[in-house]
Amino acid sequence: MTVILVHGCLPAPVSSKRNCICCKHRRGLPREKMTENGVSSRAKVLTIDTMNPTVKKVEYAVRGPIVQRAVELERELSQGVKKPFAEVIKANIGDAHAMGQQPITFFRQVLALCSYPELLNDSTFPEDAKSRARRILQSCGGNSLGSYSASQGIESVRQDVARYIERRDGGVPCAPDNIYLTTGASDGIVTMLKLLVCGEGATRTGVMISIPQYPLYSAALAELGAVQVNYYLNEEKCWSLDISELQRSVDEARTHCNPRALCIINPGNPTGQVQSRQCIEDVIRFAAKERLFLMADEVYQDNVYADGCQFHSFKKVLFEMGPEYSSTVELASFHSTSKCYMGECGFRGGYMEIINMDNEVKAQLTKLVSVRLCPPVPGQALMDLVVNPPQPGEPSYDNFIKERTATLSVLAEKAKLTEQVLNTVEGIRCNPVQGAMYSFPRISIPEKAVKEATANGQQPDMFYCMRLLEETGICLVPGSGFGQKDGTYHFRMTILPPTDKLKILLDKVKEFHHKFTQKYS
Amino acid sequence: MTVILVHGCLPAPVSSKRNCICCKHRRGLPREKMTENGVSSRAKVLTIDTMNPTVKKVEYAVRGPIVQRAVELERELSQGVKKPFAEVIKANIGDAHAMGQQPITFFRQVLALCSYPELLNDSTFPEDAKSRARRILQSCGGNSLGSYSASQGIESVRQDVARYIERRDGGVPCAPDNIYLTTGASDGIVTMLKLLVCGEGATRTGVMISIPQYPLYSAALAELGAVQVNYYLNEEKCWSLDISELQRSVDEARTHCNPRALCIINPGNPTGQVQSRQCIEDVIRFAAKERLFLMADEVYQDNVYADGCQFHSFKKVLFEMGPEYSSTVELASFHSTSKCYMGECGFRGGYMEIINMDNEVKAQLTKLVSVRLCPPVPGQALMDLVVNPPQPGEPSYDNFIKERTATLSVLAEKAKLTEQVLNTVEGIRCNPVQGAMYSFPRISIPEKAVKEATANGQQPDMFYCMRLLEETGICLVPGSGFGQKDGTYHFRMTILPPTDKLKILLDKVKEFHHKFTQKYS
Repeated sequence: MTVILVHGCLPAPVSSKRNCICCKHRRGLPREKMTENGVSSRAKVLTIDTMNPTVKKVEYAVRGPIVQRAVELERELSQGVKKPFAEVIKANIGDAHAMGQQPITFFRQVLALCSYPELLNDSTFPEDAKSRARRILQSCGGNSLGSYSASQGIESVRQDVARYIERRDGGVPCAPDNIYLTTGASDGIVTMLKLLVCGEGATRTGVMISIPQYPLYSAALAELGAVQVNYYLNEEKCWSLDISELQRSVDEARTHCNPRALCIINPGNPTGQVQSRQCIEDVIRFAAKERLFLMADEVYQDNVYADGCQFHSFKKVLFEMGPEYSSTVELASFHSTSKCYMGECGFRGGYMEIINMDNEVKAQLTKLVSVRLCPPVPGQALMDLVVNPPQPGEPSYDNFIKERTATLSVLAEKAKLTEQVLNTVEGIRCNPVQGAMYSFPRISIPEKAVKEATANGQQPDMFYCMRLLEETGICLVPGSGFGQKDGTYHFRMTILPPTDKLKILLDKVKEFHHKFTQKYS
Repeated sequence: MTVILVHGCLPAPVSSKRNCICCKHRRGLPREKMTENGVSSRAKVLTIDTMNPTVKKVEYAVRGPIVQRAVELERELSQGVKKPFAEVIKANIGDAHAMGQQPITFFRQVLALCSYPELLNDSTFPEDAKSRARRILQSCGGNSLGSYSASQGIESVRQDVARYIERRDGGVPCAPDNIYLTTGASDGIVTMLKLLVCGEGATRTGVMISIPQYPLYSAALAELGAVQVNYYLNEEKCWSLDISELQRSVDEARTHCNPRALCIINPGNPTGQVQSRQCIEDVIRFAAKERLFLMADEVYQDNVYADGCQFHSFKKVLFEMGPEYSSTVELASFHSTSKCYMGECGFRGGYMEIINMDNEVKAQLTKLVSVRLCPPVPGQALMDLVVNPPQPGEPSYDNFIKERTATLSVLAEKAKLTEQVLNTVEGIRCNPVQGAMYSFPRISIPEKAVKEATANGQQPDMFYCMRLLEETGICLVPGSGFGQKDGTYHFRMTILPPTDKLKILLDKVKEFHHKFTQKYS
């Protein structure tokens, strides 16, 4: 199809340049072109060259090309296309219910009651579910989940969150006014980062994130135009965090930006480590010394499996360190309904607690969240149930405990199984999955495969995972999507598939790795 | 309390300046201070001077100081503090359920079934509600609302949205692939604006918005650092949109920025007008001529009350204008579960349809939305029900129609009542509420009151609304929060309070206005 430009200009892609390459055609006027069949078509207003450049820099591996290909493969399978596998197994994302984990009955009963309060007259629902539903509805405008809540979140829910945190942290006080309910943890993290970003050039805000990291952080920093400051976790020591590495990182960063925040994910995503109390104390001391705002992503706080490991909240450790720290170090901690034993990702519930935030900044935060009106109210209700579950003596208590324990112990089994099987494979080395929902094993990729990947313009571990997907139907995320030391390769897999499927998956990975290594050796 | 700085520096507020004012103390190191009792306290990392400056520029009147005061007053009332009124009536925000509007039974039945699928065995639920719930659950991973959906939204919901749009627009085709489900309309609008923003200084993206406007737009533009380009609606002609004003606005804007998008709210918020088909055609022609990306906020598409008024979607008009326009003009249209007859704000459901978007940009949009994982799944389910409600012959059809009709006709009555009563007040002039949920009357404020307000550092209509709130308990939003012609004053009030309360509210406003005018004359 020949394109003839109306103004007689040479055909040229419309780019961010302001004038036509031939005639200096004034910007802002339509550049029309006529196709051969006479229909005029205007150049687009919004093109890849004229869109927000920071958005282009955003990358998000967990839902990247490999997942798109997995979805295509599923569609092909359902259309009867022959493949070397019967189903796609997705271990790319921490999506527990999609992998067959069952929701907690009590939570769903209360949500049904809140959605359709007619059911409060239904005698088959337990009384504690009804009383929780009544309490939630009483906090909603017009007693309806359909009303906007306060932008910071429903007050009674924030009170329950505060009490939960106090219980969790052995009585360290928590003010409901420091709680902001969010649309999942992601929303809270992005909001906090947004507050922190300022300056230009060498004074631009830098934010320290672990490598490997959860790509929400890199994506948000790219979008906000902040400087990503990497610190590397120590793979040799079970992905632990060395203060000397934090120091190296912040010192280097100071030569070109203004590092102002330090993000920690504990238990770790994608690396599954659980931080020791000592390490958390060291991190807090470091943050105080280097004047860094601490962001603690603690969404996996119930997902701790390894013997000798325990979850310590940054808040609790901070307060145990005494007023020198507890009254000065600025901290935001994030939690969510999506992980732990709940796995309720779809409801987009979450909260953040802010500690030692400047009052004027807090007022700005409250204003900022008001623009989006409020977090989803069903997600707020669910968050309330998570922090205020059935108590001993209530009718739903036993079943709640049974369900929660079952879910967590199955996860613990699968964490162990994953580590064990992967470590039997020559060329795969896997740290223990101490917590969270992921294993991030290191894989050896033969030189020939690295070359072929590079020739394809692919990262070697993307090449590896794409081959794995095409040959076995298993969807994992390449380590390059999370960041890793140069020359090392990994993948992230969730431990969420049901045990029988997880076994098949691990066996297939084993077989694939063997064949792949042979082929490229 | 005397503050002694450890480094011997003079006490000085920590500002965005990089060095201490006395000793050039190196940036990045902690500036410690010691209070008299010997507890050291560090200056905050994040202060009003060192936070993101674009966030500080954000304003959002609908949840601003007047609403905060209303909440305080409610608390005082509940604590038994005597006030000249017994209750606070909030007419500041389009929050239908909070004002007593009842949810649609069918929608809530399906949501309860989806939340707690055990209820599918309950014979009291109608079969059509069950079959809708089954269909939604089948589209969810693991048949659970708790799974993440695709980031663009559940595929079957997007298909239903596309069919709804086709029916609404008399058969104009709609591709599910052009539908993005969102967290309320606000989320979609901010996402689209985010894509559009680029350039610096005189080439910075300008976005044209109506004045008066819904403050989400100004807030989002401030946050994104885009240039807000105002065009004024014609109050004398029932808040209609004049193309000559658009032309003036864009021509002026071109002298200092790069206007790239034109936002329209139809039916109008806060002004309640409904655009004529001719006007929409003119706007589309203008957008094509001036190369502007069109953003049509059509969340009030079912809220049309006035005789002779009808909702015309931008999409439909665009396609009726023939391929010269329909194949070139870039358009995003937004809808939501929050308004119309549903009023389900708390679920944060919504969608946007994009038309003629460049394919590469669309890929970037899909990537961008994936970072936030997915819109709340219960909100997606609700959006599905809105676009696929009970059909003739289904058991819930009659009741659905009855409920929907009742809600919309009560709104129509209240629209008329509001206009009529306000126009009986000397010094208040009110255009007909043709659609949406708001009246935006013009109010005369005596010179003496203007002076007193200015002396208080308040906008005169903020002063007026604050007096109204303190004396009557009625919470409205001053026109200055939406923008208005210099020297004119307005307030926005919703028509949502129940008819009996609305009558009281209108009478109180009448009485207040009279007294206020007398007092300051």
